[in-house]
Amino acid sequence: MLEELKQTVCAANLELVKRGIVIYTWGNVSGISPDKRYMVIKPSGVAYDGMTPEDMVVVDITTGEVAEGKWNPSSDTKTHLALYRAFPTIGGITHTHSVHAVAFAQAGKDIPALGTTHADYFYGDIPCTRELTREEVESDYELNTGNVIVETLQGRKIDPMAVPGIVVRNHGPFSWGKDAAASVYHAVVMETVAEMDLKTLMLNPDAAISQYVLDKHYMRKHGPNAYYGQKKG
Amino acid sequence: MLEELKQTVCAANLELVKRGIVIYTWGNVSGISPDKRYMVIKPSGVAYDGMTPEDMVVVDITTGEVAEGKWNPSSDTKTHLALYRAFPTIGGITHTHSVHAVAFAQAGKDIPALGTTHADYFYGDIPCTRELTREEVESDYELNTGNVIVETLQGRKIDPMAVPGIVVRNHGPFSWGKDAAASVYHAVVMETVAEMDLKTLMLNPDAAISQYVLDKHYMRKHGPNAYYGQKKG
Amino acid sequence: MLEELKQTVCAANLELVKRGIVIYTWGNVSGISPDKRYMVIKPSGVAYDGMTPEDMVVVDITTGEVAEGKWNPSSDTKTHLALYRAFPTIGGITHTHSVHAVAFAQAGKDIPALGTTHADYFYGDIPCTRELTREEVESDYELNTGNVIVETLQGRKIDPMAVPGIVVRNHGPFSWGKDAAASVYHAVVMETVAEMDLKTLMLNPDAAISQYVLDKHYMRKHGPNAYYGQKKG
Amino acid sequence: MLEELKQTVCAANLELVKRGIVIYTWGNVSGISPDKRYMVIKPSGVAYDGMTPEDMVVVDITTGEVAEGKWNPSSDTKTHLALYRAFPTIGGITHTHSVHAVAFAQAGKDIPALGTTHADYFYGDIPCTRELTREEVESDYELNTGNVIVETLQGRKIDPMAVPGIVVRNHGPFSWGKDAAASVYHAVVMETVAEMDLKTLMLNPDAAISQYVLDKHYMRKHGPNAYYGQKKG
Repeated sequence: MLEELKQTVCAANLELVKRGIVIYTWGNVSGISPDKRYMVIKPSGVAYDGMTPEDMVVVDITTGEVAEGKWNPSSDTKTHLALYRAFPTIGGITHTHSVHAVAFAQAGKDIPALGTTHADYFYGDIPCTRELTREEVESDYELNTGNVIVETLQGRKIDPMAVPGIVVRNHGPFSWGKDAAASVYHAVVMETVAEMDLKTLMLNPDAAISQYVLDKHYMRKHGPNAYYGQKKG
Repeated sequence: MLEELKQTVCAANLELVKRGIVIYTWGNVSGISPDKRYMVIKPSGVAYDGMTPEDMVVVDITTGEVAEGKWNPSSDTKTHLALYRAFPTIGGITHTHSVHAVAFAQAGKDIPALGTTHADYFYGDIPCTRELTREEVESDYELNTGNVIVETLQGRKIDPMAVPGIVVRNHGPFSWGKDAAASVYHAVVMETVAEMDLKTLMLNPDAAISQYVLDKHYMRKHGPNAYYGQKKG
Repeated sequence: MLEELKQTVCAANLELVKRGIVIYTWGNVSGISPDKRYMVIKPSGVAYDGMTPEDMVVVDITTGEVAEGKWNPSSDTKTHLALYRAFPTIGGITHTHSVHAVAFAQAGKDIPALGTTHADYFYGDIPCTRELTREEVESDYELNTGNVIVETLQGRKIDPMAVPGIVVRNHGPFSWGKDAAASVYHAVVMETVAEMDLKTLMLNPDAAISQYVLDKHYMRKHGPNAYYGQKKG
Repeated sequence: MLEELKQTVCAANLELVKRGIVIYTWGNVSGISPDKRYMVIKPSGVAYDGMTPEDMVVVDITTGEVAEGKWNPSSDTKTHLALYRAFPTIGGITHTHSVHAVAFAQAGKDIPALGTTHADYFYGDIPCTRELTREEVESDYELNTGNVIVETLQGRKIDPMAVPGIVVRNHGPFSWGKDAAASVYHAVVMETVAEMDLKTLMLNPDAAISQYVLDKHYMRKHGPNAYYGQKKG
């Protein structure tokens, strides 16, 4: 089932390696079926080298049960499910341990909007979640990781399609988009702006950007009168 | 029209990828025709992978209209045009979001002349522009980006051929040269000296260089009695 | 003798180069025989380029004498031997001069547990040893390097399989695992978390993580009820 | 003349590119003939791509005149000559603008001996020269660059074979060795220890190492009773 989706999700997982933002098995990408009933995700702890679409695992989004697949799904499966359930606009999710985004996660700091590179893709600061409580960690850790992402976005009234990424405190980045490939793209952008921001803050700890520049850059690519790129269709 | 220029401009765009200073579609290079009437520039939002000279767009420098091409020109087209109109010595322009140059742009700081690597190509600090005003951003953003570059160079009495680059506040680097290839070369040098400077300032926030060393290095390559390299012709 | 072990140890040494954590001859990996009588180790000062299993050196763990091999064993041989003798659970050891782990060694600081990347492999801070005394350096330097590692782990009551690595003060990282390949894997993880930590501390010098998150991450991969990855067997 | 030396000097120049410590034409390597009468050096401003032994230039060390070659020799020729004339033990010299070594040069700071990576090749701090005076720069710049290196080493009573490198203030690293290849090797080590040191100092500005550790590491590789590597001959 969902052979085409397995291909695009597998390709998106391999793209993480090609872009240099994962080593070993440190990342996972998922995508959802057109009817939004199933998620296809990377298997847990399987190496990227030689990975094929047949290795992908199909999970029922409602029940969380494996619908098809020869492997266990990623250990972060419940985190992905929590996001798909909370945000119907999301079609793909990526999780990595890319170095600079992790540095912000470990520092417990938002990746601040400081420039137009950021503003072209993220409409405002990329939030850092609060730390999970002991109970959240000990009860249903991966589900609660998803829940704290949802809580953070909703609590800060952030549209997940306008800020398609977050860093989970002491853990690392999650990103998303309309499909698996878009979520990987956002993971790469997030890592890059995290590196830019770290270096900016070393030069000027008070660096900032005016809201009207953020508005302009985001809107020229994503607003109703967007004029970046080529006309669609 | 201008088939040879399309080839060199396309090659200069691909050189950005080869030198590791752009990812995805984050950069654009243009060059002008021998009669200075036309600019050839990368199309907007098109991937470098598989890009050919036929994808380049020809723009009339005076009118700003597309003279030939199947794609929209780069969204930064008006910035390029403003520079060609203000500075007749410029034959090629490059814009990137290279990490270290962006860090200086986001920090709102000049890339200071601290060593001979810098002095071999840039005769003095590489300026950072002021921030655009709300009105400049909301009215004609890309044109005003060009205008603030012109204003900065003229206001600081900088010859654009002596300091062939700038960082636009909160945005990133623009560089130029006698042709498209030279502008890419200067983009790579600017990114490299930005990295050197960031690391220098971490070791010694008061680092500086004497003017007479800058004079010597710039003049031995570019002055009337230049003796670096091989005799021309 | 031990042809299969020579192959895996040689492959583990070459993996150091492939992973980008050694240049020239700056690293060495060893592994022990199933009966724990012999260690197979890289020869001293021999380039990785063109290295084959036949270049590996077999050393008797009890006597420290070369049992087979055409080269001198690594100059760090006595360090490896001290660890195998003290910790019977260790089956492979790696030593490198990878940049970020060395930075912590030179700074005389533990690589602190600040996130889940670390916690997935190292159950607590990666210790930095004390400096060797003049007498330890001048008498039997490489043996005493091993002794100070043993002293540090035992003094801090650290199970070497739970924290499979250390940085030796002013020197660099040593890591280990169930076999040669595992020790290389841990060397790569240590270098990566060292980079993450350096960058984290630049953003927030007070960064820290709660013990219950460390417990959770380590246990979900290595505890009796581990659920990361695929079922064994 | 000197065809074999041209080959090794050309190979040493290309090694700079392979090791990632030069871009464009930013570096040069020379080596001297067995009779110490001639220096073979890279031509000035010629790209590495496609460079062959025939492009190398032969310079008479005593007179400084070109003895053979179709190109101008490197603009740093007089600096190389000054070193060969002052230090008869030197057989090869490398100059680069590698990023981290340049950062120390621009910061006006020695690259301090902080660990064993450094001590294996450099017996003590790698010095930073004083700044050249205006007169030195304006009269015979490249010769005076050589002279300030000689002055620094002699003033600090440093044997150039024990500390085979230096950073010239506001300029960059020069290194040397018994032949061209050894000087490149030392250029790579210097860049690497500069990166390690920059990162160490960010973690601990007071980092240091005891002299007896430096003694041990340098002597075990280079002293009369050296035991690192394989027996010679």
